[in-house]
Amino acid sequence: MMALEYEDDIVVVDAGVLFPEDDMPGIDFAIPDISYLRENSDRVRAILITHGHEDHIGALPHVLKELNVPVYASRLTHGLISVKLREHGLLSESRLNVIEPHAPFGIGVFNVEFFRVCHSIPDAMGIAITTPLGVVIHTGDFKIDHTPADGQATDFASLAKIAAEGVLLLFSDSTYAEVEGYTESEKVVGEALDQAIRDAKGRVMIATFASLISRVQQILNAAVKYDRKVTVVGRSMINNVNMALKMGYLDAPPGTVISMSQARKLPLEQVVIVATGSQGEPTSALVRISNGEHQDIEIVSGDTVILSSSPIPGNETVVAKTIDNLYRRGANVLYSRIATVHVHGHASQEELKMMLALVKPKYFVPVHGEYRHLVSHAALAEQTGVAKSNVFILEDGDVLELTAHEGSVVDQVRAGHVVIDGQHYWSMDSAILGERMRLARHGVVTVAVTVDAESDEIIGAPGLVSSGFVELDVSQDLFQKTSKHVASHLEELGLSVVNLNELEAKLSRSVSDFLYKETHRRPTVLAVIEQV
Amino acid sequence: MMALEYEDDIVVVDAGVLFPEDDMPGIDFAIPDISYLRENSDRVRAILITHGHEDHIGALPHVLKELNVPVYASRLTHGLISVKLREHGLLSESRLNVIEPHAPFGIGVFNVEFFRVCHSIPDAMGIAITTPLGVVIHTGDFKIDHTPADGQATDFASLAKIAAEGVLLLFSDSTYAEVEGYTESEKVVGEALDQAIRDAKGRVMIATFASLISRVQQILNAAVKYDRKVTVVGRSMINNVNMALKMGYLDAPPGTVISMSQARKLPLEQVVIVATGSQGEPTSALVRISNGEHQDIEIVSGDTVILSSSPIPGNETVVAKTIDNLYRRGANVLYSRIATVHVHGHASQEELKMMLALVKPKYFVPVHGEYRHLVSHAALAEQTGVAKSNVFILEDGDVLELTAHEGSVVDQVRAGHVVIDGQHYWSMDSAILGERMRLARHGVVTVAVTVDAESDEIIGAPGLVSSGFVELDVSQDLFQKTSKHVASHLEELGLSVVNLNELEAKLSRSVSDFLYKETHRRPTVLAVIEQV
Repeated sequence: MMALEYEDDIVVVDAGVLFPEDDMPGIDFAIPDISYLRENSDRVRAILITHGHEDHIGALPHVLKELNVPVYASRLTHGLISVKLREHGLLSESRLNVIEPHAPFGIGVFNVEFFRVCHSIPDAMGIAITTPLGVVIHTGDFKIDHTPADGQATDFASLAKIAAEGVLLLFSDSTYAEVEGYTESEKVVGEALDQAIRDAKGRVMIATFASLISRVQQILNAAVKYDRKVTVVGRSMINNVNMALKMGYLDAPPGTVISMSQARKLPLEQVVIVATGSQGEPTSALVRISNGEHQDIEIVSGDTVILSSSPIPGNETVVAKTIDNLYRRGANVLYSRIATVHVHGHASQEELKMMLALVKPKYFVPVHGEYRHLVSHAALAEQTGVAKSNVFILEDGDVLELTAHEGSVVDQVRAGHVVIDGQHYWSMDSAILGERMRLARHGVVTVAVTVDAESDEIIGAPGLVSSGFVELDVSQDLFQKTSKHVASHLEELGLSVVNLNELEAKLSRSVSDFLYKETHRRPTVLAVIEQV
Repeated sequence: MMALEYEDDIVVVDAGVLFPEDDMPGIDFAIPDISYLRENSDRVRAILITHGHEDHIGALPHVLKELNVPVYASRLTHGLISVKLREHGLLSESRLNVIEPHAPFGIGVFNVEFFRVCHSIPDAMGIAITTPLGVVIHTGDFKIDHTPADGQATDFASLAKIAAEGVLLLFSDSTYAEVEGYTESEKVVGEALDQAIRDAKGRVMIATFASLISRVQQILNAAVKYDRKVTVVGRSMINNVNMALKMGYLDAPPGTVISMSQARKLPLEQVVIVATGSQGEPTSALVRISNGEHQDIEIVSGDTVILSSSPIPGNETVVAKTIDNLYRRGANVLYSRIATVHVHGHASQEELKMMLALVKPKYFVPVHGEYRHLVSHAALAEQTGVAKSNVFILEDGDVLELTAHEGSVVDQVRAGHVVIDGQHYWSMDSAILGERMRLARHGVVTVAVTVDAESDEIIGAPGLVSSGFVELDVSQDLFQKTSKHVASHLEELGLSVVNLNELEAKLSRSVSDFLYKETHRRPTVLAVIEQV
């Protein structure tokens, strides 16, 4: 998410989610912290969406609850947003607008024009925003593919026309700015899938991203060519394929896509299954199949399974385990490390330079990707002639102020992310995440003590229970010793303490120290004192 | 670890550790489950070690405590094992033997000969074991590098001689069996490091594996060439460099390697720092430097930092964060994704085929690596002419029985891993790891209730505390409601239950259900009932 501001007008580009990393256990996802927009809500005019991936639209239900402004998106993106808002009961009150490329419209002081880019979902757009100071271009996520599966290439002619009168500022996709050369065309994958389906002796199962409609189209093409029928498993894949067929983003002869029950009646060599789970998601179709836990599908010898994807950073291990388990069950497995069954949707260095050379911006801000990707992209900008002092590597919350003559980071506003666990929203630096990491490392021990409120004496023996700490055979002895220690130690501490919280803290510390002495480990210790 | 058995004699090859994965929080490492060897300890004659990496020697202190048999290893490997056993107070009672390549010796019915292979640590060996049935060859970890940094290539001449009379069985390294072509030579890295040090305007810091002595040699060579001094940070790197200098595995003019205090007096452009932390280990030198938390070293603009490594699977995210933080502090960063500053130590497909073609084994067992790597390697073996029915993909515990004419998996013995958390050893399927994963996801809530043993009535209000569950402002109200619910619910349950454990289980379930109703989350609930 980024905001562009000129005097009384703010437009926002994209409102996506961040998927949880290793240090965010139990978190569903994170959304942008919109404190700044909330404080300036009277000036926010619109949200412009580049394309329909979750990391660009996923936060809309949360953001629109607080900022009910118009949203502008292309046709497919609009469809995906509608589904999402309906699920949240927000569709009727939202102000969604479908835009077409090359149809400029005004938003406050700005004039906005979308242009087509090629990415791993149809109907992806870049955005040109004409401001009183000059034209600002945001590429969205893009690659340059001269032979895309859906025939929709990045629209350089329009971009050239927009850029002809000079561009003030370019925001460009940095995700693959580390990678030399060009990103391969989707056509390469089409050929590999065609060949794999042609050569397969038995059933073929292909897992990919549910949003990668063009990949599904290539699978349909090959299936038709080799007289196979296609069935779809996994909720998000089923929803997307149905939606794309209905809206015309997927094209296949009637009867090509069939139900699971129809597919089960066909010989295996006449079936292609398209499935979710290419990222090793634990509850996905492919992972359940690889574990022998899927209700409809069991791997048999002769099956070919294709992971038409590459692992998103952080998912490498779970994807690898899924591949191993598929092999164990006797499948022949094809995946990006050993076959060209996937290309990604982001521009590599030569494409990024082409964008820079075409747009020739005065100022440049690399966006999307980790810090090292921004650094790589900044270097490319300098190579193509952007003045070093006009290239800005920004972090969340940085406020870049530009005039026609100079730019500088003038402020830091509250930004970053808010994490969501069920119904709860926490700041990313919430103590809860740290507590969870600590619980995972060493487990938890609870100690409960009952104290006579009048005599200030311990009644009964302190009780201890634990989870994730030590095996039962160890804990029985250990906790008996701990209980005795606690009882005698508490007497020493003196129980006539006014503040129960303080006494609980002391009790917790005492148990923690004792357990450390005994085990060289410090589990989380929760102490409860019952005064009766 | 693997065991080779003929009638009354067992020899073991390697005894390494497994580093913890994401689903093993708090675990230090895992060692092989040696139940089978323990039960047959009177027949175990020796442990043969291929090379000095932790995943080949790390379990020795634990294994030798139970099986005090002779250990055979090359000179450097012997040195590394000695350090480890001394730390565990086991050196004096251990029976360590230094072996030289091409010096056969007898162990029970076996005749054993080590031969030199090239790997990412000096003095790596393959092992030929002559059995009554024929010759068995274990490659250890290896690559084929015709221009290794230490001049010690894989010794094909000796291997050819050993293999001349026919080989019964080959065990070969599968770690990179997915990768086409040849693994690049260490020489390529030497050239890249030379160039980076030559071009650096300021200080150069290079992080790599502490055991990668040949990499350190290449750094020393370049430093000498460009008139720089080298200082070493990180405990394991300091230990290894000192040991390698003393034993002659590293070679540099006197005064090349200097102390940190000496280095601090030199101009930055005369300094190279060799550091640990190339895997993003949280307490390593490089990570502390990247976080601005190192006592001696602070990144300044003009520093060049080189990660001469690639992330081990599972470490991708932490390594990436370290790179990002180094950039943020103003360093120029070189890493394997953008520069040839690392090659790994394992053979790729063409090298594996060369090994297979040279050895021409009757039977083949791919070893080392994940299941998919074994599958890839098995396919290579079939391509080079090993009969499909003579190739065995084995999992931990599989017992492969061979005669001169046929082989088959005849049994499964208890094997796998034992995980170690401080002083505690658990089986890999211990409930504790599952409990920890659950604690991490949703946190923990403790409920303590005091019951009058005579009247069976609750005394006072049930007390609740939590960790990693919800923020304090939520929990105050929520726990008050829960406490009331528990009190009334317990009355309903009836407290005159004989079994306290049963009552605690009911209490825990009741609180869990109530919290789920309120929050749609199921934290671990620990219940303690104090009867007074």
